[in-house]
Amino acid sequence: MLLRMSNLFLRTLREDPADAEVPSHKLLVRGGYVRRAAPGVYSWLPLGKIVLENVARVVREEMNAIGGQELLLPALLPREYYEATGRWEEYGDTLFRLQDRKGADYLLGPTHEEVFTLLVKGEYSSYKDFPVILYQIQEKFRDEARPRAGVLRGREFHMKDSYSFDIDDAGLQESYDKHRAAYIRIFDRLGLEYVVVKATSGAMGGSASEEFLAVAPTGEDTFVRSTGSDYAANVEAVTTPAPAALPVEGLPEARVHHTPDTATIRTLVDLLNDLDLGRDFSEADTLKNVLVKTRVPGAREWELLAVGLPGDREVDFKRLEAALEPAEVALLDEADFAANPFLAKGYIGPRALLDNKVRYLVDPRVATGTAWVTGADRPDHHVIDLVAGRDFTPDGTIDVAEVRDGDPSPDGQGTLYTARGIEIGHIFQLGRKYADAFQVDALGPDGKPKRVTMGSYGIGVSRVVASVIEQSHDDKGIVWPREIAPADVHVVGTGKGDQIAEALRIAGELEARGLRVLVDDRKGVSPGVKFTDAELLGVPTAVIVGRGLADGVVELRDRATGGREEVALDAVVERAEAACRA
Amino acid sequence: MLLRMSNLFLRTLREDPADAEVPSHKLLVRGGYVRRAAPGVYSWLPLGKIVLENVARVVREEMNAIGGQELLLPALLPREYYEATGRWEEYGDTLFRLQDRKGADYLLGPTHEEVFTLLVKGEYSSYKDFPVILYQIQEKFRDEARPRAGVLRGREFHMKDSYSFDIDDAGLQESYDKHRAAYIRIFDRLGLEYVVVKATSGAMGGSASEEFLAVAPTGEDTFVRSTGSDYAANVEAVTTPAPAALPVEGLPEARVHHTPDTATIRTLVDLLNDLDLGRDFSEADTLKNVLVKTRVPGAREWELLAVGLPGDREVDFKRLEAALEPAEVALLDEADFAANPFLAKGYIGPRALLDNKVRYLVDPRVATGTAWVTGADRPDHHVIDLVAGRDFTPDGTIDVAEVRDGDPSPDGQGTLYTARGIEIGHIFQLGRKYADAFQVDALGPDGKPKRVTMGSYGIGVSRVVASVIEQSHDDKGIVWPREIAPADVHVVGTGKGDQIAEALRIAGELEARGLRVLVDDRKGVSPGVKFTDAELLGVPTAVIVGRGLADGVVELRDRATGGREEVALDAVVERAEAACRA
Repeated sequence: MLLRMSNLFLRTLREDPADAEVPSHKLLVRGGYVRRAAPGVYSWLPLGKIVLENVARVVREEMNAIGGQELLLPALLPREYYEATGRWEEYGDTLFRLQDRKGADYLLGPTHEEVFTLLVKGEYSSYKDFPVILYQIQEKFRDEARPRAGVLRGREFHMKDSYSFDIDDAGLQESYDKHRAAYIRIFDRLGLEYVVVKATSGAMGGSASEEFLAVAPTGEDTFVRSTGSDYAANVEAVTTPAPAALPVEGLPEARVHHTPDTATIRTLVDLLNDLDLGRDFSEADTLKNVLVKTRVPGAREWELLAVGLPGDREVDFKRLEAALEPAEVALLDEADFAANPFLAKGYIGPRALLDNKVRYLVDPRVATGTAWVTGADRPDHHVIDLVAGRDFTPDGTIDVAEVRDGDPSPDGQGTLYTARGIEIGHIFQLGRKYADAFQVDALGPDGKPKRVTMGSYGIGVSRVVASVIEQSHDDKGIVWPREIAPADVHVVGTGKGDQIAEALRIAGELEARGLRVLVDDRKGVSPGVKFTDAELLGVPTAVIVGRGLADGVVELRDRATGGREEVALDAVVERAEAACRA
Repeated sequence: MLLRMSNLFLRTLREDPADAEVPSHKLLVRGGYVRRAAPGVYSWLPLGKIVLENVARVVREEMNAIGGQELLLPALLPREYYEATGRWEEYGDTLFRLQDRKGADYLLGPTHEEVFTLLVKGEYSSYKDFPVILYQIQEKFRDEARPRAGVLRGREFHMKDSYSFDIDDAGLQESYDKHRAAYIRIFDRLGLEYVVVKATSGAMGGSASEEFLAVAPTGEDTFVRSTGSDYAANVEAVTTPAPAALPVEGLPEARVHHTPDTATIRTLVDLLNDLDLGRDFSEADTLKNVLVKTRVPGAREWELLAVGLPGDREVDFKRLEAALEPAEVALLDEADFAANPFLAKGYIGPRALLDNKVRYLVDPRVATGTAWVTGADRPDHHVIDLVAGRDFTPDGTIDVAEVRDGDPSPDGQGTLYTARGIEIGHIFQLGRKYADAFQVDALGPDGKPKRVTMGSYGIGVSRVVASVIEQSHDDKGIVWPREIAPADVHVVGTGKGDQIAEALRIAGELEARGLRVLVDDRKGVSPGVKFTDAELLGVPTAVIVGRGLADGVVELRDRATGGREEVALDAVVERAEAACRA
């Protein structure tokens, strides 16, 4: 079906929309691909619908190739399913909740673990039924606190979600690996530059999990990569190599110094160096003890937790939350300090913590045999040469210090640096959380019931569209990879009637050869406007039928390289087809 | 992609689901096409998803053929759009309403007139931009009071909705006619038996409108057809031919009779015939006056309305509501009678109504020159030979009497009879209601703004799936028309390993020829179960690879005719393909 711009429901804009900050948002709106219907809620206009469907097609093909079976589930779901797994509450404000005319509670599906689990429970009962991979491509609803960046973070968006069901861990690992491989094929076909990072599992409640991040400076997710390998990880998942334990014999005794007005580490280090103690001190030689409080789900009382880490590092709160999950974590307030007078603010040391039974976890760098400058538990005093494993023994380690550019890569090759990305895919080994909630068992070969184990896997289909643009655009517009472009070729007839007629003829021939064709057959629109629109819309190959037509010549343009080439009129169909199929 | 029953997410059921009453509901569930997720909310399993997509494909092809452009709009819509048109209120409990985390009101789209209108307003501004036809295929949400019959009347369902925008009435008529023709092609391709009935416009607020009803005894909609022509209409839209006016000269004078204890028409007629007045009376000779009250939108006060109609007919309340729309209508209560003492219950006549300025409308049969027995406005008295146009002149006619089997067809050919149908499509000339609400103007050739005019057109895609089954099934299962069947051919390998292997080989060859193939390659399942499943699932053509294989023979079955034919093994692929492409 020829897409004719003379009647296509498409109006391009010259100005960026006022609310747009990132390139994909600007270009999708300016190119007439999407229009905003409400905050975080978008309508897909004809060309946008085509691109969205193209991404869905690639996803569908690769899901089918790993044996995935496509279903279509409703968006409107009863509360009881999500209550059974605790997600009715856990999702908090992010869940759209509503009531029907009888007052029954419903929600709009944010993901569909519960419903797929119940479906499988309803149909399958024997180990012979497994494994099975089910998926759908469908609207999802999440009431994001800050919908932003157009379709990059919407409140109603398009997602492929799939679910694997296996009878044992080895099967789950296989289903997971299949998805991982399918995702790599999908994102490769879409021409995306991406990394696969180890992730924490978040609210989904699983164990192993990886995220696919499209590399983009506009991404919301921070991750670290190595200079020396293809290591990449979410900062939450970075592990700090623990130094080997050192012998404590022969180390100097710990001793307390009067260190007035040294509530900050910088002032402390300066003072120590002024004291001329025979060696130089740096912030990395100090042991900072950060107090927080935590509460496990269902508990009423908060519990104190102290984190000890080198003074040159901050606690990364995201890493802390991930490490303590599913417990909550919060900072102390004045009332907490008042209730615990042994906490000498600015001068807290391991002694008072351990003496008062505060749970005390330290950074892996605080290994046995390392000596530290730290608080002496009274104002204006610090202790020097306090040795871990000799003078104090923490309750364990916790790896929540900020990760910095230049830190060694956990795989021992190269150093880490920070980059930003957009989460386009996520694969989880959920394990038995949902099967337990709904008691999904399969009768094993031994006649005994066996609890099934699950994986859940998502691709943000609409977000992928935006991610492609984030990576593939220039100052003139979008540069679509061919696989998802709204058309293979854009035939532009400039100005005169016979140029437009010839453009339509060429477009018809290209279409007859199986190409998807957009043709600019608008009358009364200047060549300049048509060229500008063609670059904005971003179709990979363009054929310009302009003034050269009188001499039997048209122009072939490549959107990605900017290359232009004059082609004889009678060769253009052949040449354009070759370019499109290259 | 070969659909293999050995791993297809499909379990057929032998028993009808407890909540199912109609064939399509029973068979879709028993055949593993759908599963219920909540009342009126269904999941489509793999085969169901394929059938649903096949219907969508037919709809899409025919919509594209009339120049429709496909978009995809969100389901989550802000209240203000629907408030602007009054539909936020008008939809009543049928609208799913919800709030986001900030307390802003949203709804789940029941249809999308508002959003499409705003989209067109945003993009288009000149008469040259029109006409345009936009459509989408997408989930709709309506909180039905009584969801029933599986996907026939769901609360979340799949719909094609399209909208035409024109600058004048002639254009609207053309867009409407295009849709009408496209709908006929769609429903013909789907093999449906249907009628196109004139409809009232309901809450959509339009003028001309027709419904496409699939003829089915299980349908919720009643309509009438003619024995002598292809006339069909909703009862609301049936028009009663008005007899020609008769001369009043020479007719007997009206005279009042004492008619004690004749509050019912039957007792009245019996008494009159007992009185021996020189002729026989029937109920059709009496003029019954039915009192109701009406209120136009926005008005505070109710107003009395009297409907005069022959005594052998009842007022059809649906026809009355349709005739008075958008005014409300209600029955009188005792307080109303008390407030209007001139209303002599059981003996109400035209005189008192007209003397007391009650609006008085009569059935078309009450033509000038017709003589009636009617109430004399005091208990136990009736008047005989009261002549319309001589003794009383009503305020007009109203065509709201019940329509009965045997009534003359409005087109003058044959008589009417009642049938039932399922509404599968609806086409409306909306006119300027939505364009007025959002002030959508196009600049005309004269430089002056011209308000655009709209049509809206729907097809219930999921409902069509069920309607096809209502018309095409037998006691063994579904009989799919090929166009939307989940596969072209069902290859059944019975029992033995080599029969299954041969079935898979044949299936592979048929697939290589471009056919869509379902193959029953299940091991350990009896031939009887496989045949039963094949009939239940309803694929048009089956190839049975069974015991005959040893003799080089397989069987070809036709689901619709029940025909069976032995075919030599080396001819089966050719023959099966021919059957599928016939």
